[in-house]
Amino acid sequence: MGNIRPNSPRIWAFLIAVYWVTIVTYYCLWKSYRKVFQLRNSLSASAVARPQQYTVLVRDIPATEKHESRTEQVDAFFRRTHPAAYERCMIMHNFDKAEKLYTERETATRKLEHAEAVFELSRKAGGDGVRPMHKTGTLGLVGPKVDSIDFWTKKIQELTPLLEEERKVVAAESKEDAALVFFNDRLAAAEAAQSIHAAYALQWQVEPAAEPRECIWSNMHLPAWQRSIRQPVVYVITFLTVVFYMIPIAAISALTTLENLVKLVPFIKTITDIKVLNAILQAFLPQLALLVFLALLPKLLLALSKAEGIPSQSHIVRAAAGKYFYFMVFNVFLGVTIFGAVFSSIQGFKVLIKQGNLSVSKVVELFGAKLPPVATFYITYVALKFFIGYGLQISRIIPLIIYHIKRKFLCKTEREHLDAWAPGPFSYHTSVPADLLIMTVTLCYSVIAPIIFVFAFLYFFIGWLCNRNAALNVNVPDWESNGRMWPHIHNRFLAALLVSQITALGYFAVKKFPYTVFLIFPIIATYAFYLYCKRNFYPSFAVVSLEVASQPVKETPSTTTIVEAYTPTCLLDGDKFEDAEFQDARSNMTSRSNSGITSPAERNV
Amino acid sequence: MGNIRPNSPRIWAFLIAVYWVTIVTYYCLWKSYRKVFQLRNSLSASAVARPQQYTVLVRDIPATEKHESRTEQVDAFFRRTHPAAYERCMIMHNFDKAEKLYTERETATRKLEHAEAVFELSRKAGGDGVRPMHKTGTLGLVGPKVDSIDFWTKKIQELTPLLEEERKVVAAESKEDAALVFFNDRLAAAEAAQSIHAAYALQWQVEPAAEPRECIWSNMHLPAWQRSIRQPVVYVITFLTVVFYMIPIAAISALTTLENLVKLVPFIKTITDIKVLNAILQAFLPQLALLVFLALLPKLLLALSKAEGIPSQSHIVRAAAGKYFYFMVFNVFLGVTIFGAVFSSIQGFKVLIKQGNLSVSKVVELFGAKLPPVATFYITYVALKFFIGYGLQISRIIPLIIYHIKRKFLCKTEREHLDAWAPGPFSYHTSVPADLLIMTVTLCYSVIAPIIFVFAFLYFFIGWLCNRNAALNVNVPDWESNGRMWPHIHNRFLAALLVSQITALGYFAVKKFPYTVFLIFPIIATYAFYLYCKRNFYPSFAVVSLEVASQPVKETPSTTTIVEAYTPTCLLDGDKFEDAEFQDARSNMTSRSNSGITSPAERNV
Repeated sequence: MGNIRPNSPRIWAFLIAVYWVTIVTYYCLWKSYRKVFQLRNSLSASAVARPQQYTVLVRDIPATEKHESRTEQVDAFFRRTHPAAYERCMIMHNFDKAEKLYTERETATRKLEHAEAVFELSRKAGGDGVRPMHKTGTLGLVGPKVDSIDFWTKKIQELTPLLEEERKVVAAESKEDAALVFFNDRLAAAEAAQSIHAAYALQWQVEPAAEPRECIWSNMHLPAWQRSIRQPVVYVITFLTVVFYMIPIAAISALTTLENLVKLVPFIKTITDIKVLNAILQAFLPQLALLVFLALLPKLLLALSKAEGIPSQSHIVRAAAGKYFYFMVFNVFLGVTIFGAVFSSIQGFKVLIKQGNLSVSKVVELFGAKLPPVATFYITYVALKFFIGYGLQISRIIPLIIYHIKRKFLCKTEREHLDAWAPGPFSYHTSVPADLLIMTVTLCYSVIAPIIFVFAFLYFFIGWLCNRNAALNVNVPDWESNGRMWPHIHNRFLAALLVSQITALGYFAVKKFPYTVFLIFPIIATYAFYLYCKRNFYPSFAVVSLEVASQPVKETPSTTTIVEAYTPTCLLDGDKFEDAEFQDARSNMTSRSNSGITSPAERNV
Repeated sequence: MGNIRPNSPRIWAFLIAVYWVTIVTYYCLWKSYRKVFQLRNSLSASAVARPQQYTVLVRDIPATEKHESRTEQVDAFFRRTHPAAYERCMIMHNFDKAEKLYTERETATRKLEHAEAVFELSRKAGGDGVRPMHKTGTLGLVGPKVDSIDFWTKKIQELTPLLEEERKVVAAESKEDAALVFFNDRLAAAEAAQSIHAAYALQWQVEPAAEPRECIWSNMHLPAWQRSIRQPVVYVITFLTVVFYMIPIAAISALTTLENLVKLVPFIKTITDIKVLNAILQAFLPQLALLVFLALLPKLLLALSKAEGIPSQSHIVRAAAGKYFYFMVFNVFLGVTIFGAVFSSIQGFKVLIKQGNLSVSKVVELFGAKLPPVATFYITYVALKFFIGYGLQISRIIPLIIYHIKRKFLCKTEREHLDAWAPGPFSYHTSVPADLLIMTVTLCYSVIAPIIFVFAFLYFFIGWLCNRNAALNVNVPDWESNGRMWPHIHNRFLAALLVSQITALGYFAVKKFPYTVFLIFPIIATYAFYLYCKRNFYPSFAVVSLEVASQPVKETPSTTTIVEAYTPTCLLDGDKFEDAEFQDARSNMTSRSNSGITSPAERNV
C-alpha cells in the first residue's frame, strides 16, 4: 500500500463519499427533530392531564428565617412569585432509612408468601406437610437453621413498627432544602419550571418534576454542595473506568484468536481440527469474547450515575448510556482499531526496530495499511449483532427458557409467576450506546469499506422491526421521558460523525493524499452544526413549551390526587394510606375529579 | 540562562506564586458575583417601573394563516399563552428607509439652524449681513455654490412629505416576523421573557426587550435566516481582522525603535541627538506607536457587531468589546511577546542557523531566555497607560481644548454649544478590553516579573478613582444594561488567567523545571471553575429573576406610555406625535398614571 496518485478516480470518489455522508447525516438529523418534536408535543398536549404537568422540583432553598418553618418559607416565596397558580408544596426528606426499612419489609413479605406457598404445596402432597426451613447466615449457607414462616412473620412484626416510626419522623417538619411545588394550572407550572426564581444564583433552582413513578426519592433532597462534589468524583471514576478497562479488553482481544487459544488450552485442538467448526470459531470467537466482556459494565455505570445525585430514573439511564457510549468508543472502537492494527502489524514493527528505523511517520504508515483489515472485523461484528442479537431478541428464546426454569424450581406464589413472565422495560442504557457504536463504526469505515453500509442498513432495519414489535407487543415501559433522550443521541451521533471525519482525515494524511485539506471543512461544518442544534433545539427538550402547555385539559386534577401521586412508595401502605401530612393536604383542598392521574394505590400494585 | 536546579528556592517560590495568583483570582471573582447581583437586583427591584420591565421581544414568528393579519396572529398566540397578563403587541417593521429619511432631515435641520445663526451674527456685526453659502458636492469642496438657508429650507420641505409617507407605510400592516409584546405586570413579563413559547424550536423566540433608548430598530425585524448568515460571516471577518492586523503591527513594532527611525527618516537625527529627548523617545516611542495604531479599530468592530443583527446597543458594545479583546490578546499581547522575542534574539537565531542547529527545542529555549526583557516592555506599557492615559482622562484637558476650538470656529447655535460641551457616555467597547489586556499582561508576567503587580495595582487604583469620578460627575450613560457586561468580563478574566497559566507552564517547561506537571492542575481547575460559573451564574444575568420582578411597584405604567416609550425615534415628531396606529392604542387603553416612564418627547430632546 504505497501513496495514492493525486488524481486517481478512486481517491476523488473517497472525497465525495465523505462529503456525501456528512450532508446526508445533517439532513437526517435535521428532519428527525421535527418528528421528535411532533411526538413530544402530542404527548404533552394531550387533554388527559398528568401529575408531572402540575409539579416542579425546587432545590437549593436558602436557609429559613428564625421562627419560620420550611413549609412557610416555600409557601411565602411561591405565593409571591406565582400568586394565582401556586397551590402547595411538599418538602423533601431524607428518605434513605424509610426506603431501606420498606425494602426490607417488602422482601420479608415476599419470602413469607413463598414459604407459605411451599408449606401449602407440601401439605397438598399429603400429610401435615413439611414446614420450610432456611439458614439465616450469608446466602442461606451458614448460621442456625430456622423455620421460615415463623422467621419472616417475626421479621415483619419487627419491621412494621420501625417503619411506622420512621414514617412519623419523615412526616414531621423537615429542614432539607428541596421541595416539590404543586400548581393548579399546567401552563403556570410549565412557565415556572423554566424561570429563574432567585435574586441570587445558586438558590431556588427550579426544574420540571419527573414523572412520579421515575422519581429517585433518595436523591431528591441532596443539597447543592453534595451534588457539586458527587458529580466530578463520579466523572473521575468514570474516566478511570473508561481508560483502564482497556487493559483487560486488549488482553482478551489478543488472546482470543484461535491459534492463541490452542496454544493456551491445548485440549481444544480436537475441536479446532474440525474444519467447519474451525472456520466458525475463527470468525466469531473474538467478537463473542468482546460481547461477553461488555455485558458486565452497565450495572456499574447505572450505579455511578445514581451516585451523581440525579433525581429521575430516565435521567440516570441517559447518564449511564452516555458513559457507556464513551466507554465503547474508547475501548471497543479505538481499542480494537488500534490494538488490532498493532497486533496485526507486529511483524512490521519488528522489521522497523531491527532496521533501527522506528519513526512516527513509519508507524503511522504501518497503521494506515492495517486499517482495512480491521474494517472486516467490524463488518463481522455488525453482522453478528443483527443475526445473533436481534435473532435472540425477537424469538425471546432466552426469556422463555429462563421462565420455564424459574417456574419449575423457584416460583411458588402467583406474584412470583407474574414477575418471572414480565418482559420488563427497555434497557436503553445498553441498547442506545450499542446502536450508536454501530453508527460510529459505520460512519468511520463507510469511506474505507463502503460495504459496511449494507450491513448497517440491515442492522438498523431489522432493529427497527424488532424494537417496534417489542414496543407494541412485548416490553412495558417504566416511565416516559417525552423524548428527552433525543438530544443525547443526537449529540453522540454528531460525535460519531466527527470521529469518522477525523478518521478520514488521518487515513488520507497517512496515504499522503494531496487534497487532504478538503477534509478539514466537514469537520468545521460538523462543529458549527452541533453548536447550532445545541443553541436552537436542545433547550426545547428540557421543558414543555407554553404553546403546548396551554392546550385545553379535559379535567384538571385536584391537588390532593397530584400530591398522592407524588408520595414516595416507602411512605405508602397499600390502601392503608393514612399519613397525617397528606390527610391534612386532602382536607385542605377542594376535591376535584382525578381523571388521568394514576392513584398511588394503582401504581403500587 | 541555563536550566534551573530542581530544588532552588526561587523555583518553588514561582510555583507557589502561580497557585497563589490562581486562588486569589477565584476568590475575587466569586465575591464579585454577589456584589454584581446586589447591584442588578437593586436596579431591577426598584419601585419605579421601567418600560422594559413590561416588554419582551419576540422574533421568528411563523407565517400567518390565510385571512389573518400579523397582529391578530400575535394577539391570539399570547392571549392563549398569557391569558391574564397580555396587553398588546407592536409588530416590527423595516425601519431602514424611515430612519434614513429621519436622519437626513435632522441633519438638514441642524444645518439650517447653523446657517441662520451665522446670518444673524453677521447682521449683528452691521449692515444687511452676509447670507452663508456652501457648495453642494463632496465635503463642500466641489459643485455649484448655493445659498445655505434657502438650500436647507428647501431640503426640509422636500424630506418632510417623504418621511410622512414612509411613516404611513410603516404604520400600515407589517409582515415582518418580529414584534414587541407588552404585558400589564412585570412579574408576568419577566416570566414570559425566559420561557420557551413555541412547540417547535426556531419559532416564537422570546427574549427580554432592551431599554427603549438602546433599541437598534433597524435590526429588530431581521428574520432568523438572516441572523444565522450574518453572524458566521461577521465572525469570519473578525477572525481575519484579528489575525491579519498582526502584519502591520509587527512591522510597526520592528520599525519604531529610535535607531530604525533615524535610519528611515534621517532628518530627525537633530532631535535624537538631544540626550534627554532621546531617552524619552527611546522609552515611549514603540508604545506610543502601538497606542495610535490601536485607536483605529474600535469603530470597525462596532460596525461589524451591528451587522451581526444584534437588536440592542449594550449588546453591540459587549460584542465589540469581546472582538477587541481577542484582537488585543492576539496582536498586542502575543504579537509583542513573540515578535519582541524574535527581534531581540535575531542574533541568537543567526548563530543557530550558522551552526546548522535550528531545532525546535533550541528556538523555544531562546524564547524563554528573551521573555523577561519583554516583561519590562509591558511594565512601561502599564505605567504609560496610567500616567498619560488616566492623567489625560481626569484632567479632561483634550475635551477642554476641543471644546474651545469648536466654540471659537464651529459652534453657532445653542444646541451646537451644548453638544460640544457634553462629555458623552463611557466607551466601554474600548475601555473594558484595554483593562482586560492589562489584567492579562499582569497575570501572565506576575510570575516572571512580580514587580508588575505594583504597576497593575496603581493602574487599577487610579483607574477606579478616575472612572468613579467620571461616573459620578462627568459621563452621562446612554443606557443601563443592568450588569450584563459582567459575565462577559468574567469570561475574559478567566481566559486571561488560563493564558497566564499556560504561559507559566511553557516558561517552566522551557526552563526544564522538573515539577512542571504541578502546573497542569491549575489549568484544569480554571476550566472547571469556568464551567461552574457558566452553569450557575451566567443564566441569571440574561433575565430578571421572579423574586426580583415580584417586588411591589409604586405605580404600574399604562400600556399607552409603554408603547409610546417603545416608538422608534424616526416615527416621532417632537410634540407632533399624532400617528394613527398609536392614537388607536391610546384610545383603546384605560389611561393610567405614567410615572417612571420617560415619555418619547422627553427622550427626544
